[in-house]
Amino acid sequence: MTDAAIKAERIAILAEGRLGVLTSKTAACVVRYQPERVACLIDSTRRGRLAGEVLGFGGDIPVVGSVGEALGRFPDSLLIGIAPKGGLLPPEWRRVVVEAIQGGLNIISGLHTMLEDDPEIGPLARRHKVRIWDVRRPLVPDDVARGLMKHRRGRVVLTVGSDCSSGKMTAAYEVVRGLRHRGVRAEFVPTGQTGMVLAGWGQAVDRVPGDFMARVVEDLTLEALSRADVAVVEGQGSLVHPAYSGVTLAILHGSWPDAMILCHQPTRKRIEEFEVDLPPLAALVDMYERACAPLFRSKVVAVALNTYDLDETRAKAEVERARRETGLAVTDPVRWGPEAICDGLGGVL
Amino acid sequence: MTDAAIKAERIAILAEGRLGVLTSKTAACVVRYQPERVACLIDSTRRGRLAGEVLGFGGDIPVVGSVGEALGRFPDSLLIGIAPKGGLLPPEWRRVVVEAIQGGLNIISGLHTMLEDDPEIGPLARRHKVRIWDVRRPLVPDDVARGLMKHRRGRVVLTVGSDCSSGKMTAAYEVVRGLRHRGVRAEFVPTGQTGMVLAGWGQAVDRVPGDFMARVVEDLTLEALSRADVAVVEGQGSLVHPAYSGVTLAILHGSWPDAMILCHQPTRKRIEEFEVDLPPLAALVDMYERACAPLFRSKVVAVALNTYDLDETRAKAEVERARRETGLAVTDPVRWGPEAICDGLGGVL
Repeated sequence: MTDAAIKAERIAILAEGRLGVLTSKTAACVVRYQPERVACLIDSTRRGRLAGEVLGFGGDIPVVGSVGEALGRFPDSLLIGIAPKGGLLPPEWRRVVVEAIQGGLNIISGLHTMLEDDPEIGPLARRHKVRIWDVRRPLVPDDVARGLMKHRRGRVVLTVGSDCSSGKMTAAYEVVRGLRHRGVRAEFVPTGQTGMVLAGWGQAVDRVPGDFMARVVEDLTLEALSRADVAVVEGQGSLVHPAYSGVTLAILHGSWPDAMILCHQPTRKRIEEFEVDLPPLAALVDMYERACAPLFRSKVVAVALNTYDLDETRAKAEVERARRETGLAVTDPVRWGPEAICDGLGGVL
Repeated sequence: MTDAAIKAERIAILAEGRLGVLTSKTAACVVRYQPERVACLIDSTRRGRLAGEVLGFGGDIPVVGSVGEALGRFPDSLLIGIAPKGGLLPPEWRRVVVEAIQGGLNIISGLHTMLEDDPEIGPLARRHKVRIWDVRRPLVPDDVARGLMKHRRGRVVLTVGSDCSSGKMTAAYEVVRGLRHRGVRAEFVPTGQTGMVLAGWGQAVDRVPGDFMARVVEDLTLEALSRADVAVVEGQGSLVHPAYSGVTLAILHGSWPDAMILCHQPTRKRIEEFEVDLPPLAALVDMYERACAPLFRSKVVAVALNTYDLDETRAKAEVERARRETGLAVTDPVRWGPEAICDGLGGVL
């Protein structure tokens, strides 16, 4: 399933008009965790600035204004680092992709539009002998989930969330780093495009046909456990998000976790578009545990808060509040490291 | 979304080796509800028998042994009326499909394998000027769900289940007939292949990419409400089925129902493959209502039992038991008609 993956060494990341921690999630995560792979960021509205100034990390990675300018930094690949809602190729990006291909760059894209299949872009890439990694191209297995998780070897941890973009990928990634630091053979299981670009494997489960989602997650988790003792699976969406809840539950049941980490951004109170208020953390903990209960026993053992938009004092207050509300280990793993969460996992690993 | 649909008038239904109420679900449902469209059934192991003998309904619709024999009944289309697990085209059926096309039949297929895209079958069909309706071909909308359900006009009823193949399609179809009989403008919303073949429209939600499932259900439900006052949506799978629960929840949140009907086969106690015991009915009622609660208020108002494998006395005992356990209206809508369920819906419609 990783045949198409491109292990790019020097990436130019498109974040046009939207470079920011939440507005260009993929771009920001690659800059945060693998800055050595990033040649430059492309955002004409922030041209001439540095990643460190705009994102708060990424140091002196330059922000350039166009693909033409980016080529001067000698990248080997263009990563589309922003995701339009719905995930189709916006018309104005077509020109950018074409220019990158003409400039000899491979393309890494997490769009729902499969660029390889595009009648202009696919043939152009072949003509220029560059590769396209459509990260979201779905794998369709030959069967549905097989019930292999119950008797697997190894332990599984899953990050779950109050909403989408609440830090599930980041928490999973940080926890793997934390566990490895403690000498645990842990492996990150990517289920979305950002995690896939970071790890160089995985499947975009939100693109997999409904019937096969749980199977794909089962396969990914077992693959991780074939080379590690603990698989830390990146969750998606939320059980209370009307558009994505199906993907969330498929990952929950497909990965069959021993323990869960609940991810939440304290300043987020509501899913506006659907007029849905986010339940309190304790209710979310209960909801995720109950969703597993008829199948297997799993506990939420820690809470990962995403406090990037709070100052230190307020962030600490939110951690304290979440700790009181849930009685669990709580931290912001990006701000203070994953140690508290790794401690919380101690009982189940 | 209904462009590809074939409104076949005389269908030969393939049920090779598996003609039966549960083993050939699609075949059995078309025979039950639209026998006038069925030219014959194909099952070489039951050749020479009649539908009425094998299924208990369908009267003197003949069972023939091959496509060649079926052609003598002058069908216009071949419907693949059985679904292999995983849904791919079994090698031995390829010859059957080819023979049907060579005999001038359109093909209606609910397989995950898209026959139109098959390098042998697609071109052959074009050469013979017959049409292929790949019922499960997924629609990929241009965006995810939009939160249009909360303020829709009209009422929505959804059938949910303890397991897959527990009678959700049938209950929804029966309830629409029952409501119409009472003068209610009700419309059946097909979300799976059997319902689609019966109704001539719909989407196989289990084949839609995860992110778009809820949106597709939103679209289907709104389409039904554009021509009716009550949409009765066919649910899929079960919240406790590890392989399919994601599809189940996407349909639950995508259709945003005012009321639910819980479907269950009393003799089914367990999902063997996953070693999952089915929860008691009262726990299932609670689970479905809780899965809606953070988003919208919805109640299970009736239970539809599938008692086809019980005698009349035991069936009545199961109805009585379910009534006591849940305090709800309970019946087997196939055995005794949907009236009790329609009564149960009275409070919300």
